[in-house]
Amino acid sequence: LEPDQSGGSRPVIGVFDSGFGGLTVLKALLRRMPAARFVFLGDTARLPYGSKSRRTIARYAAESAQFLVNQQGAQFLVIACNTASALALDAIQEAVQVPVLGVIEPGAAAAAQNSATRDVLVIATEATVASHAYVAACRARGLRGVEKACPLLVPLVEEGWIEHPVTAEVVRIYLSEVLDVARAAGQSPDTLVLGCTHYPLLRAVFQRAVPEGMRIIDSAEAAAEAAARLVADQVSGQAAKPFDGLRAGSGAPGPEIRCFATDSVEKFERLGSRFLELPVGMVELVDLGG
Amino acid sequence: LEPDQSGGSRPVIGVFDSGFGGLTVLKALLRRMPAARFVFLGDTARLPYGSKSRRTIARYAAESAQFLVNQQGAQFLVIACNTASALALDAIQEAVQVPVLGVIEPGAAAAAQNSATRDVLVIATEATVASHAYVAACRARGLRGVEKACPLLVPLVEEGWIEHPVTAEVVRIYLSEVLDVARAAGQSPDTLVLGCTHYPLLRAVFQRAVPEGMRIIDSAEAAAEAAARLVADQVSGQAAKPFDGLRAGSGAPGPEIRCFATDSVEKFERLGSRFLELPVGMVELVDLGG
Repeated sequence: LEPDQSGGSRPVIGVFDSGFGGLTVLKALLRRMPAARFVFLGDTARLPYGSKSRRTIARYAAESAQFLVNQQGAQFLVIACNTASALALDAIQEAVQVPVLGVIEPGAAAAAQNSATRDVLVIATEATVASHAYVAACRARGLRGVEKACPLLVPLVEEGWIEHPVTAEVVRIYLSEVLDVARAAGQSPDTLVLGCTHYPLLRAVFQRAVPEGMRIIDSAEAAAEAAARLVADQVSGQAAKPFDGLRAGSGAPGPEIRCFATDSVEKFERLGSRFLELPVGMVELVDLGG
Repeated sequence: LEPDQSGGSRPVIGVFDSGFGGLTVLKALLRRMPAARFVFLGDTARLPYGSKSRRTIARYAAESAQFLVNQQGAQFLVIACNTASALALDAIQEAVQVPVLGVIEPGAAAAAQNSATRDVLVIATEATVASHAYVAACRARGLRGVEKACPLLVPLVEEGWIEHPVTAEVVRIYLSEVLDVARAAGQSPDTLVLGCTHYPLLRAVFQRAVPEGMRIIDSAEAAAEAAARLVADQVSGQAAKPFDGLRAGSGAPGPEIRCFATDSVEKFERLGSRFLELPVGMVELVDLGG
């Protein structure tokens, strides 16, 4: 870990997504570790992962992880992409030598903490749903889960139709379909997991559409919470003043963010700020040979 | 050209798309050349091209074209992907030694034949619109064109929401936006070009949404017409009985179609038949190294 001016250590945290949706995870990480250094990679030349096969996703994700660790010095990796977390976490852990955290397990853990009925709904991309990773992670915690792929939501967010009647209607249709399936199976879900990094931007739309009393779990927030604990634990094991470098304050450096993309830097810069709710700055183009 | 049983020649026509949307072009080609041999490649591992940069699209498209020509023996190439036609036709023509036809020029030519007011609307993907290839091709024919990217239409088609109120509403919104722009510029468009291979599946929805008297041009049909002419010309120059191999009939072989995809064979097979309106058969997986 790199010493900072305050004598604490300043971890370099790599955040990886297939696109820029993972900036919602970076945003949540920044709030918890405002003085860390972040290196973000969006594999925009090969997105979306959500409609591709496990084999292809694993190769893309491993190459991306190696770039962050071997070329950018990341000491922790947060896989902000639900699809890559669901299908390629093993492949990534094999490809690099640093701790790797996905979004699925933290999302399921947060659902387990919240649910009283032990029945949850999970909405995600096609590939995430096809992997059944969320339902498996829920089952391991004694929850029953019903999943649904919602392939129209990412394009609606990217079109900027956030507060839009069409989006409200699509959300209503998807929710009613997944609720019907759960109820037909005799379940009483009280928790909805947003299993895609784009979906937090529609949180308010979902909030208005869910049945009374249903709680929404944002797996980006849950993953950031878990990552902050992991980093704090690791730093505590290695440095005298572990937390100084992670908290903002007098004398502590501000957050440092470098963003890389494999393509479409213009789109990344334009849409990225919407996700990060901060200017993403200069996005650097990198060629992973894909 | 390969001799067929009837003594005519049987051209091998390569059809390339980033996904399976180009099967609408293959369908239109089949109707015109029912006894030709077709080799279709969908670069599904790297789709969608529509949101990627010119440089990336050119590399992907050149590799795909080389596969069809060098490994599958295609003697003609039809670039069924509007985005690749708009951004990478030059790169493809440099990469292979056979005649290459895109969808943009035939689409613009059909619009020019149809339009009385000389004002046309073009709807397409983001990358196709950003290239301004359709408007340039229209201008070269004395037409004024207004373009609009419609990024929600492909996901709506792939979700299967063809005859669906949400799709009708999205089409209405997009059309009214592009009509407003055209009218504000003092234009009176009488022709709408469907500049994406997915859009023909929404033709009936558009037909109900366009103003009275507006004609819809399907660039898949226009490209198939141009390709049939090109193939007939080339075959005429080389064989004694050129047309025998292109027409179905007694003694003539039926169409032969081989489909390749770089990923998601399952999705290709499931959705492909919807586009081709025939079973796509076994889709073979090919690795282009991307």
